[in-house]
Amino acid sequence: MIHAYDPRTGETFGEGIPETTDAGVDAAVEAADAAGVAWRTASRPEVLEAVAAALEANVDRLWAVADRETALGETRLRGEVARAAGQFRLFADVLRDGGYLEAIISVQADVRRMNRPLHGVVGVFSASNFPFAFSVAGGDTASALAAGCPVVVKAHPAHPLTSELSAEIIRSALPDPALLGLVHGLSAGKRLVQHPDVVAVGFTGSIPGGKAIQALIDEREEPIPFYGELGSVNPVVVLPSAAREGLADGFAASLTLGTGQFCTNPGLVFAPDDADLVASLGAAVAGSNGSAMLSSRIREGYLQGLERLSKLTLLAEGTQGDGEWAVAPKVFTIDLAAFAAQLPSVAEECFGPSSIVITYNDVAELVEVLGRLDGSLTATVHATDTAEAVPVAEALAGKAGRLIWNGWPTGVAVCWAMHHGGPWPASTSPEHTSVGAMAIRRWLRPTAYQGWPQELLPAELRDDNPVGVPQRIDG
Amino acid sequence: MIHAYDPRTGETFGEGIPETTDAGVDAAVEAADAAGVAWRTASRPEVLEAVAAALEANVDRLWAVADRETALGETRLRGEVARAAGQFRLFADVLRDGGYLEAIISVQADVRRMNRPLHGVVGVFSASNFPFAFSVAGGDTASALAAGCPVVVKAHPAHPLTSELSAEIIRSALPDPALLGLVHGLSAGKRLVQHPDVVAVGFTGSIPGGKAIQALIDEREEPIPFYGELGSVNPVVVLPSAAREGLADGFAASLTLGTGQFCTNPGLVFAPDDADLVASLGAAVAGSNGSAMLSSRIREGYLQGLERLSKLTLLAEGTQGDGEWAVAPKVFTIDLAAFAAQLPSVAEECFGPSSIVITYNDVAELVEVLGRLDGSLTATVHATDTAEAVPVAEALAGKAGRLIWNGWPTGVAVCWAMHHGGPWPASTSPEHTSVGAMAIRRWLRPTAYQGWPQELLPAELRDDNPVGVPQRIDG
Repeated sequence: MIHAYDPRTGETFGEGIPETTDAGVDAAVEAADAAGVAWRTASRPEVLEAVAAALEANVDRLWAVADRETALGETRLRGEVARAAGQFRLFADVLRDGGYLEAIISVQADVRRMNRPLHGVVGVFSASNFPFAFSVAGGDTASALAAGCPVVVKAHPAHPLTSELSAEIIRSALPDPALLGLVHGLSAGKRLVQHPDVVAVGFTGSIPGGKAIQALIDEREEPIPFYGELGSVNPVVVLPSAAREGLADGFAASLTLGTGQFCTNPGLVFAPDDADLVASLGAAVAGSNGSAMLSSRIREGYLQGLERLSKLTLLAEGTQGDGEWAVAPKVFTIDLAAFAAQLPSVAEECFGPSSIVITYNDVAELVEVLGRLDGSLTATVHATDTAEAVPVAEALAGKAGRLIWNGWPTGVAVCWAMHHGGPWPASTSPEHTSVGAMAIRRWLRPTAYQGWPQELLPAELRDDNPVGVPQRIDG
Repeated sequence: MIHAYDPRTGETFGEGIPETTDAGVDAAVEAADAAGVAWRTASRPEVLEAVAAALEANVDRLWAVADRETALGETRLRGEVARAAGQFRLFADVLRDGGYLEAIISVQADVRRMNRPLHGVVGVFSASNFPFAFSVAGGDTASALAAGCPVVVKAHPAHPLTSELSAEIIRSALPDPALLGLVHGLSAGKRLVQHPDVVAVGFTGSIPGGKAIQALIDEREEPIPFYGELGSVNPVVVLPSAAREGLADGFAASLTLGTGQFCTNPGLVFAPDDADLVASLGAAVAGSNGSAMLSSRIREGYLQGLERLSKLTLLAEGTQGDGEWAVAPKVFTIDLAAFAAQLPSVAEECFGPSSIVITYNDVAELVEVLGRLDGSLTATVHATDTAEAVPVAEALAGKAGRLIWNGWPTGVAVCWAMHHGGPWPASTSPEHTSVGAMAIRRWLRPTAYQGWPQELLPAELRDDNPVGVPQRIDG
């Protein structure tokens, strides 16, 4: 049985949800696969908009159950439901725009190509830290349904009831409820990734979790793409020219948002060796509050991470908030040479509200050390002198999927240009994003038609282009 | 030592080329990686055109050495050099067009994204059957260099001297010869895919070869993308309405082209159970000629494949051509029910000039069996009645990357719309192509810039768009 837990008390509530049996997984996948045949050619924008409307209409029920399971609070959770609904709406726009099909016609060779949905089921593994936006109602589900693929989600055990309610609400807006399957339990997840009808897998979670899923996929007879978003330390570089105003407060706010449970949390801050600056960063964290983490397992992981970091100098510590699983924000400090000597272990992600301030004296030395970091989802530069930033920016461009100027990495806008991915271990497939319009590409494959008669071509590739999608004619 | 062999005599010639040592592989990769830093930001179209011109200027030397190593003949080999040069020119056009960068600007969020080259070295495994177009001077090399990535090629042992000469000629046109490394030998190939500076691998070859490389990649600490083009049986469906005129001759010509050593060879032909039609297909093959295969190993593989097929009825056999490694074309036949009962083994690729004619009586039964085939690079329909073709076309669309109408699958046009890929085992990554303009995408990853100052943005993402690339502004 999967039991819902209340992070504020550490106690279970409700009756529990049975773990899905192998037969249950097979039934969900096979029903989804069958439902996918009609879905591939269905008009989908209106359906995606209906899903968005259904989520919004049920926001009161959704935030309430999620708050009990996650302790993330009403404001954040209402906002996250709106974000999840917004993702379904974005993909309705993406479909109407039609550019995602990448329709290309080579006239002389009489070859026409466009993207079509993968034939089969997309498996999705939910994250714990976004019970809507990266869970059952999240971007993987939205982008895969938009592409034309049915989905079976493996629910995260940290919010089983939110998962069930989300699935129920989404299904109410789908032409066939079998288009969205939901399974519970570790063994169900294993069965899911190895089912022959599953043709791609999306995942948001830890590095060990991602490696375990990859190993299961490696055992398959047919390899399938695995789009995992794993760990990220999100380096932030404060250059000597950076404006000091608001810097420390911005850092502490980004660090402690959602009790630090963001994949874009600023885990490494490289700052000039300036006692006032370092003290101000510490003071801001000292003035911050922690709160309950999402699960006892995540809390244990955070405490283990702090244990690993305890060999560094503790710069400051915030207040531990209320609740059984509450933790305090902490910031450590070390100088650049000592940090470099302890790579790579010192730079491993510690999921939660902790960070390391690494002090440097020489930008050239800093650039060399930045080149030795693992990949991240984001990298940030604080500076007012753009010339000073050039070598740092170039070093960080090789390490991260998103580069931020004078800002903070938490907060991922759902928009056309967003890229949420990065070199390993930030993601398993750095050419793909899990947020934004381009996320749909993960569930598509091109088909080329050679000498194919007009009346058999998909409408999007016909000479008369009746649906008006962008067509590229050769160059 | 790697020795060049003459397929016409089965004997070695020349002095042999030493297998590359581990240190030699490391040196080639590290030199390429270092050369890649400048190459990423260099203006590349002119260089690609210079490579094309160098290949064309040296066609006499190139075809002569390749003919001795492959026995493919002057006409084919001159054509293939032209094709290889054309690929470099196509990618010069792709770069000038700029659409491949997928520059997108989201104004409100101030996020801009575009594709950038992978940082690191692309490893390429050459194919035996195209000593230019899928080898050192082939599409993987051209598309990776175009993307901005240095390349290290593992030479195919069936044409080591052609590989060396190709590399020498290409390097003469590159700003830094280290941008194209060349290594020889099985152990060098293993070292290459596991080198930490190698960030992606392209491969054209057999299913066992592709699985072996994937297993080596799975052992890496950092996973990297593997773009393998493996086996394909390329089903051809002759519907009852198909025009009979020229059908049998077209089939035999496609089957025996290049002694059947094409990944797009028509290995399965589904035809109405019509004695005259089947006899005509057989007669055309009986009138065809074989010739020397590329290597003794490929010839042995073909003979083993024939042994496996010998439990079917031999419909016809062509003439064995001259040369030590010559083989005869063969075509077998079986009815649909017996074929279906022997799936999947009966439909395994037999690389060489052999095919199976599967006779059917009922199109609905045929559609059911087509749905059980493995993935292929291509699928072909012969018909005059488009309505009759609808269910067959839909079944084949799920099985192949390129659909051909009233044609034959051999011959892959190098053009913008080409897609050369398909569901496993046709390729390891069915969303990517190894031929055509979109092949460049395999070596790119997006980077997003948030709040980034104009003067630090890549020119392609600036508001004033000084290089004039296509920019998408939100939707």
